Amino acid sequence: MNTKILRVNMERLTAEFEELPDAYRSLGGRGLTSAIVAAEVPPECHPLGPRNKLVLAPGIVTGTSAPSSGRLSVGGKSPLTGGIKESNVGSRFAQTLARLGIRAIIVEGQFKEGYKLLAVGKAGAELVDASQWIGQGLYASFERLEEAFRDRVDICGAGVVAEMSARNSGLAFNDLEGRSTRYAGRGGLGAVMASRGLKFIVLDGDGAPGVEVEDKEVFDRGRRKLAEGLKAHDVTKPGGALASYGTNVLINVMNEAGGLPHRNFSSGQDPRAEEVSGERKAELIQKRGGVRPHACHPGCIIQCSEVWTREDGADPMGVLEYESVWALGPNCGIYDLDTIGELNRACNDLGLDTIETGNTLAVVMEGGLLEFGDGAGALRLLEEVRRGTPTGRLLMHGAAFAGTALGVTRVPVVKGQAMPAYDPRAVKGIGIAYATSPMGADHTAGYSIAPEILGVGGKVDPLDPDKGALLRGLQRATAFIDSAGYCLFTAFAVLDFPEALEGMVETVGGVLGTPLTVDDVDAIGKKILDAERTFNAAAGFTQTDDRLPEFMHLETLPPHGHVFDVPAEELDAVLRDG
Amino acid sequence: MNTKILRVNMERLTAEFEELPDAYRSLGGRGLTSAIVAAEVPPECHPLGPRNKLVLAPGIVTGTSAPSSGRLSVGGKSPLTGGIKESNVGSRFAQTLARLGIRAIIVEGQFKEGYKLLAVGKAGAELVDASQWIGQGLYASFERLEEAFRDRVDICGAGVVAEMSARNSGLAFNDLEGRSTRYAGRGGLGAVMASRGLKFIVLDGDGAPGVEVEDKEVFDRGRRKLAEGLKAHDVTKPGGALASYGTNVLINVMNEAGGLPHRNFSSGQDPRAEEVSGERKAELIQKRGGVRPHACHPGCIIQCSEVWTREDGADPMGVLEYESVWALGPNCGIYDLDTIGELNRACNDLGLDTIETGNTLAVVMEGGLLEFGDGAGALRLLEEVRRGTPTGRLLMHGAAFAGTALGVTRVPVVKGQAMPAYDPRAVKGIGIAYATSPMGADHTAGYSIAPEILGVGGKVDPLDPDKGALLRGLQRATAFIDSAGYCLFTAFAVLDFPEALEGMVETVGGVLGTPLTVDDVDAIGKKILDAERTFNAAAGFTQTDDRLPEFMHLETLPPHGHVFDVPAEELDAVLRDG
Repeated sequence: MNTKILRVNMERLTAEFEELPDAYRSLGGRGLTSAIVAAEVPPECHPLGPRNKLVLAPGIVTGTSAPSSGRLSVGGKSPLTGGIKESNVGSRFAQTLARLGIRAIIVEGQFKEGYKLLAVGKAGAELVDASQWIGQGLYASFERLEEAFRDRVDICGAGVVAEMSARNSGLAFNDLEGRSTRYAGRGGLGAVMASRGLKFIVLDGDGAPGVEVEDKEVFDRGRRKLAEGLKAHDVTKPGGALASYGTNVLINVMNEAGGLPHRNFSSGQDPRAEEVSGERKAELIQKRGGVRPHACHPGCIIQCSEVWTREDGADPMGVLEYESVWALGPNCGIYDLDTIGELNRACNDLGLDTIETGNTLAVVMEGGLLEFGDGAGALRLLEEVRRGTPTGRLLMHGAAFAGTALGVTRVPVVKGQAMPAYDPRAVKGIGIAYATSPMGADHTAGYSIAPEILGVGGKVDPLDPDKGALLRGLQRATAFIDSAGYCLFTAFAVLDFPEALEGMVETVGGVLGTPLTVDDVDAIGKKILDAERTFNAAAGFTQTDDRLPEFMHLETLPPHGHVFDVPAEELDAVLRDG
Repeated sequence: MNTKILRVNMERLTAEFEELPDAYRSLGGRGLTSAIVAAEVPPECHPLGPRNKLVLAPGIVTGTSAPSSGRLSVGGKSPLTGGIKESNVGSRFAQTLARLGIRAIIVEGQFKEGYKLLAVGKAGAELVDASQWIGQGLYASFERLEEAFRDRVDICGAGVVAEMSARNSGLAFNDLEGRSTRYAGRGGLGAVMASRGLKFIVLDGDGAPGVEVEDKEVFDRGRRKLAEGLKAHDVTKPGGALASYGTNVLINVMNEAGGLPHRNFSSGQDPRAEEVSGERKAELIQKRGGVRPHACHPGCIIQCSEVWTREDGADPMGVLEYESVWALGPNCGIYDLDTIGELNRACNDLGLDTIETGNTLAVVMEGGLLEFGDGAGALRLLEEVRRGTPTGRLLMHGAAFAGTALGVTRVPVVKGQAMPAYDPRAVKGIGIAYATSPMGADHTAGYSIAPEILGVGGKVDPLDPDKGALLRGLQRATAFIDSAGYCLFTAFAVLDFPEALEGMVETVGGVLGTPLTVDDVDAIGKKILDAERTFNAAAGFTQTDDRLPEFMHLETLPPHGHVFDVPAEELDAVLRDG
C-alpha cells in the first residue's frame, strides 16, 4: 500500500512529500479528501482566502487493474455552497497519481504574484512559473502543455473563470486524447485552486512504480467478480445501454417519466426532447465519424464516453453527457445537439461546470436577459464570461447568484448548487438526495433514479415520498464507492448482482490488506458522511439548508401536476438516523 | 390607546382594518414589527416570494408630544441578510400613521400585474393603480405625488432599484419639505414592498384623531423630564454638537481615533478626512444658504438634520449624514463634499441605502472596476444601476454580492449586510454589536461608540475586547428605544441623566396606561431580541453568522495595527447569557 502525501505550500512555494498519517491508511478518494479537509480547513474560513486548501486523492483501488476505477476525488471548502465539497472525475490523471505512489496532494497557502504550475513525476515534484498559461482557453492550453512536457502527461487545470474567482469553476482533466473534457466540475473548486496561485498540475507517469496491493489473491478474486458483473448487466455491459448511447440515453427515459426539466424547471416533459436524445446523438456520431463507445480512462469496461464532433466531423470535442445535454439544452429550451455541443465546448474551454452553467442560462432566460431557446445568444453570453465583462460576471457564479442579480425567485438550487437533470417533484427520492447531501443538489450523492426510474436495484414508485431509508443507504454506499475509486456506474451491477458487490469490497480489502465484507460498506459510508456533515454544521449549515427551494413546494410541475411533498422531519431523519 | 391594524392583501387587493390582538397591546415600533413578522412570516420563506410580509409600525409614543419621537419601524424578512429585519426611520409619516390610529400596516400577498399605491386617510384605506409611477426617480415622484394628492401628505416609497428586486433597496420617506431623503434604508425592505406589487403608501393626516394617551399625568411628567435632559446634554441640546454639525461631527472624531474606515476598510486614518468633516460641511451650508439645524419631523429638540445644496445654493437635497459622507466618501477614497452630495442624491433618488452603496462602491474599487477616489466614475456606476444594466445589476445587491462578483475577499459585512462607519478593529465594542445583532452589521443596534469614543454613558477603552455585558445592555436598551419610538440620539441624554431615562419610560407607560419603571427596560428589550434571534435560528442562522469577516481577524488596521480579537465564545454569550 502506498503511503505518500504531497504537500504543496503556495506561500512558501514548497512541494514536499510526507508520510500518510496512520489514521488515514484505510482511506482513499472521497473518504480521504473529506477527512483531510475536515482536519485541516477551518470550517468558517473564506473559501478563496488563505486558510482553505485543495485536496486531490485517487480512490483506494485506482491505478490497479480493478475495472472502471480511474476516479479522482477533489476536496476543499466550496465557494459555491460554503460547505465541504468532494467533486469526482474519471480520468487517467487519477490512475497516474496513484501509480506515482501518491495518496493525496494537499495544496495550501496562497501565492499572490501570479500563477505556478506543479509538475510531478517519478523524480519528485516542483513548482514552475505558469505566467504563459494565464487567460488562455483550456483546449489550446492542454495541447500546448503536451508539447511543453510530453505526449500523454496527465493534466489538471483551472480555467480562465477560475482566475476570475468564479463560483462556477470546475477543474478540468484531460481525456485520453489530451482534451480538456473531463471535469471535477461541481462546487467551484477551480477557483479554490486558482486562488492558491496554482494554475495547472502536470503528472508524468513514466516509470511510476504502481499501486502496492497488500493481498493480491483477495484483490484478484474480487476484481474478477466485479468485472463479470459489469459485463453481464444490461446497463454496463459492452454493447449495453451506456456503451451504445452514453449517459444521454436518459433523455427519452426521463422525458417520458415527466421528470426532465424544461425551461428552468417549469415543465417535466416536451416532445422536442427526442431531438437531443441519446439515440439521436449516437446516430449523428456514427454518421459524422465520431467515436462511440469510448473510455474516459484505461481499464473501463462500461465505456459510456464518446467523441462528439461538428457536423462535418471536424473539431472533435469529447463527450456530450446527459447532464450537459439537458442543462444546456431542454432546460434552456434549446433542442439542437449542435448548439448544445458548442455550448458544451465553451464550458470545457472556459472551465465551467455544465450543470451549473445550463441552470444559470435558464435562470437568466427567465430573468429576461435572453429568450428561452436562443442558442446563439447563450453562446454570446459565454463569450462575455470569457472576457470577464459585467454580464460575464453575472453568469460565472452560478444559478443562485444570477437569480439574485435579476430578481428571479424560481431558482433550482440546494445549498447554492444547481440541480441536475431530474425534477424532484416527479422523482421524490432524488429530491431527498438533493436536499440532504452535504454537497448541495447532486444526483451522484445517492442515485435513486436507478430504482425509481430504471428498475435497477429493485423498483419503487417515483412519486412515493417515503424514501428516507433508501436514500440513507444509497448515500452511504455511494460514499463508499467514491472512496474506493470506482465509477458510480459500477453501482448498476452491484445493486443487482450481490457477487459484484462482494467483488468490489474484496478489491478494496485486497489493496488495503484489511479483511472487509459487504456488511462494512454502510458503516464506512456513514463515517464519511458524518465527517462531512460535521464540517458543514461548523460552517453554519442547519436543517434549513437540507431543503428544496420554496417554489418546488408551491408550484406544480406539468404535465403530472405534483409538488415536492417529502416532509421536513423526514428529510432531517435521512442522514441523522439509522 | 389606539388599537387598529391595517392589513393590506395584495393578492386579493384588499385593505382592511382589524383590531390589534391583545398580545400586541403593549408593543410598538420594533417590538411590534418583530412580533408580527415572527408570528406571520415563515422563517424559511423566500424574502421576495409570496410568503414574506412587510410590516410598518410607529413607536408607542410616536404621534404624541413626546420629544424626538417621530420614528417608524419597518419589518420583514430581509433579502439582504436572510434574517428578520427592522429598519428604522425618522419622519412625519410615523407620526401621521400613529395619529390616524394605526398601530401597524401589514402588507402581504403578491400583486403581479404591475404596481399599486396604498392611500390611507381618516376615511379609510384604498389601493389604486400606480402604473404612472413606475421607473421614475423618487425626488420627482415625491413632488408629483404631493401634486396628485395634496401638499403635506406623507409618503413611503420603493425606488426603481426595488422594482428590480435589489437587495440594497431601502424605503424612502419624505422630509418636511417633501423630498425623498428619509430612509428605512437597511436590509432591502424596498424590494420586499415592491415584490408585493406595492410602490407607494400615501398618508393623509388631515383630521386624524391622534394618539390616545391612557395616563396623561404620568406621560406629561415623563415628557418634561426627557425634554429637560435633551436640552441639557452637550450632544443633544439646541446649539449642541448635533444641532451645530449634524451627525457628521463624527468624521474628525473617528479619524482621530484611527477608526474611520478609508478605502474599503484598509486604513483607519487619513488626513484628508478633514475635508469632509462636519465642521467643514456646516461652514459650507452656511455659506451657500442651506439649512442647519433642521428637524426630520415636528417636535424634535435635537434637530441633527440639515439641507445640503449645490455650490450655488441650488437643488436643495436634504441631509448629508455622517454614515453617508463616510460610506460614499473616505471609504471610497473620495474627499470632496460636493461629489459625496451628488452620490447621496443619486442614492436618495434611486432608493438605495447609502451605507450599503458606499461599501459596494469601495468593494468594486478594490475589485478593479474603478479607481479609489474616482467620484465621477462612481456617479456613472449609479446611473448604470438606474438603467438596470449588467454593471448596475452587479452593484444593486450590496457589498457581499459585488465582492463575489469580482472575487474580492476583503468584504466588510456581517450576515450579508455591510458595516457602518466604525472599524471594529479600532473600536471593539461596536464590532460586538455588528457581530451579534440579529440585523447584521448595524451601529444602531448597540451604539457603544457613545462610551468607547464619546465618553457618554461612562468612558471605556475602545481597544478593550471585554465588552459582552456592555453590548448586551446596550442592545436591549436600544430595542426598547426602537419600540418606544424615540430617536436613538435621545440615548445620549438618557445614558448620562437618570431622570431623562426615567422620563422616557414614564412616557411609554403613560401612553399604554401600564406602570413601567426603568427596571423593566432590560426585560422588554430582551424579549424583542429573543423573538428576533428565534426567527433567525429558524431561518438557518447559527453562531457562525455572529462573526466578523475573516480579514478583520487576519489583517491589521493602520495606523494602530490592531485586529479584531473578541473571542468567539464571548460573542456567543452576548445575547444568550444574562
